[in-house]
Amino acid sequence: MTEQANGLASRVTGQVHVIGAGLLGASVGLGLRARGVDVTLEDVSPTTAALAADYGAGRARSAGEPDPALVVVATPPDVVADAVEGAIRRFPNAVVTDVASVKLAPLHELQRRGLNLDNYVGSHPMAGRERGGAIMARADLFVARPWVVCRDADTSAETLALVEAVALDLGAVLLEMTPEAHDRAVGLVSHLPQVVSSLLAARLVPAEEHAIELAGAGLRDTTRIAASDPELWVQILGANREPVIELLDAFQRDVAAFTDALRAADAPGSKRSIADLLASGTNGVARIPGKHGSAARFASITVLIDDRAGQLASLLTELGELGINMEDLRLEHSPGAQIGFAEIAVLPEVAERAVADLQSRGWRTL
Amino acid sequence: MTEQANGLASRVTGQVHVIGAGLLGASVGLGLRARGVDVTLEDVSPTTAALAADYGAGRARSAGEPDPALVVVATPPDVVADAVEGAIRRFPNAVVTDVASVKLAPLHELQRRGLNLDNYVGSHPMAGRERGGAIMARADLFVARPWVVCRDADTSAETLALVEAVALDLGAVLLEMTPEAHDRAVGLVSHLPQVVSSLLAARLVPAEEHAIELAGAGLRDTTRIAASDPELWVQILGANREPVIELLDAFQRDVAAFTDALRAADAPGSKRSIADLLASGTNGVARIPGKHGSAARFASITVLIDDRAGQLASLLTELGELGINMEDLRLEHSPGAQIGFAEIAVLPEVAERAVADLQSRGWRTL
Repeated sequence: MTEQANGLASRVTGQVHVIGAGLLGASVGLGLRARGVDVTLEDVSPTTAALAADYGAGRARSAGEPDPALVVVATPPDVVADAVEGAIRRFPNAVVTDVASVKLAPLHELQRRGLNLDNYVGSHPMAGRERGGAIMARADLFVARPWVVCRDADTSAETLALVEAVALDLGAVLLEMTPEAHDRAVGLVSHLPQVVSSLLAARLVPAEEHAIELAGAGLRDTTRIAASDPELWVQILGANREPVIELLDAFQRDVAAFTDALRAADAPGSKRSIADLLASGTNGVARIPGKHGSAARFASITVLIDDRAGQLASLLTELGELGINMEDLRLEHSPGAQIGFAEIAVLPEVAERAVADLQSRGWRTL
Repeated sequence: MTEQANGLASRVTGQVHVIGAGLLGASVGLGLRARGVDVTLEDVSPTTAALAADYGAGRARSAGEPDPALVVVATPPDVVADAVEGAIRRFPNAVVTDVASVKLAPLHELQRRGLNLDNYVGSHPMAGRERGGAIMARADLFVARPWVVCRDADTSAETLALVEAVALDLGAVLLEMTPEAHDRAVGLVSHLPQVVSSLLAARLVPAEEHAIELAGAGLRDTTRIAASDPELWVQILGANREPVIELLDAFQRDVAAFTDALRAADAPGSKRSIADLLASGTNGVARIPGKHGSAARFASITVLIDDRAGQLASLLTELGELGINMEDLRLEHSPGAQIGFAEIAVLPEVAERAVADLQSRGWRTL
């Protein structure tokens, strides 16, 4: 069980109101409710709001309730400035934050409107799923994920503390950045990959059927995010145009350079150029932290099992008897070899004891 | 349990000799051995050959043994023509195939050398893993994966039958293609994604540390294959130069068109152009068959579990009691919501009964 499930106290003092009850808003609600925070919800779609409430992400606000301590705006990017303005006007005493994936454009828009932004600070949790909607919400969506807070010199300590309390309650890792640095960073790690993945997948449209039949894991992985909602991405890319254009121009030059090297592959040094460009990719991948979002949070134990159905059930029963809670489970098996591995995620503090206990009961661990 | 594990008879008549005991060669050996085939192995590295033999992928050939019925060449691409020539000369009565990922260049090289290719037919199993080597070999590496056979008009029925028997023994799905069509197809579904992924990952090399800290699943997925061995890919791309250059040129034009549309995002129709290009990506992804290699082979049952450790163990125990073999297991859980889903892969023919039996025992299925 994670901290949330243990009913740990919240760092958030006061009520939290969530505007926009989609994937992010409902996940914020679910996670804070698990900490005992009083969460209210609204959405332009009453159906979405009701669904999120049924799911346990919060309740509707009643007429005449006092202002919430914090408003979290979790609407689509193209209406985030409007929603933040609305929140500032409706709840003048509340701290307001938003979780939109671009930070500079909405800030400029709010400044242009001449609003008092003393109680506003933009933020961005780096979490999401392929499919959106309240139904996909998870209390642990933000666990071990970065949560960027874009404070400026005017942001008061109280405002900052409240937004950071929410991020920490939800298990996220806090990062402070300027809106400019944030937008350049997400351009590189999120928006460029999105465009590249979409354009790569678009090459499949005119392809012959027999060619697509050869598709493997490499193609599936590189194009997975291309299945995302085009309308949402038009908004995001439009809001972060300058950094994305700069990145796309640089990427296009790289593609041209690579193609030239391949075209000249028989010329002296060309094979070396190709290898160097590919090796840069290997070096780039090596910079990406942790393979799994949960990597920082859980330790992994690998147990050998020789007959999957029966042995795995016994293993899980014995883990229960030993009082070891399993946070996640992944199977790796080779039917031909009659041997499988169960990779079990546990809290780091129990990992050593778990291995010793399992070994003493005759389990083989790696 | 899969067919292999049930000890089903092999379709292969006679001994199989594998040249190159890396990931593919050792996996061929493991899979055929599980069917009872007599497999011999060799590798330029005695350590690799010994490791594969220890792993159960086959045995060393003894002096004076009769020719094998089939030789499978599973060497790196740049020595495949040499290895095939060597096999044809050493075992004139054997059928010879190779599993290299490019088919036209080695064929042209063999023809240029004036060899008798009556007993040779090139093939290509679409299977692999990020990390190579015998240690990563799996008997089920080829299960439900396409295996392309590049026959020509001269290929005898006996030659074809023997290579196809190996592919079917290993659980692969047979496809026939000309070498030209094969090379264009793998250019699209494998080589282009590799280059694009590498160049995308290369953009991370000069990035600031704080930007990379924001990396999420999207970046990890799109760049995963960029971690592959650059030397191997120089060989593959060099051998399939023309189709890859054509694809890279087209892709580069797409990147330029997208960047132009984004640059002109305020002009009439530009948002529509951007959305259309992104939607093409969505359409392209939709053409890719089955999300998982096992999709075609297994049916999926989703069972609701409210307390993971204890309930999951009970579920697996009851599956065993019901005589339902679990082929794979994936957990999806939301600790905050105290509810989880176990997605269980079973053979399609038992799926309906499994759901009914589980429901009658009080399990909730989706």
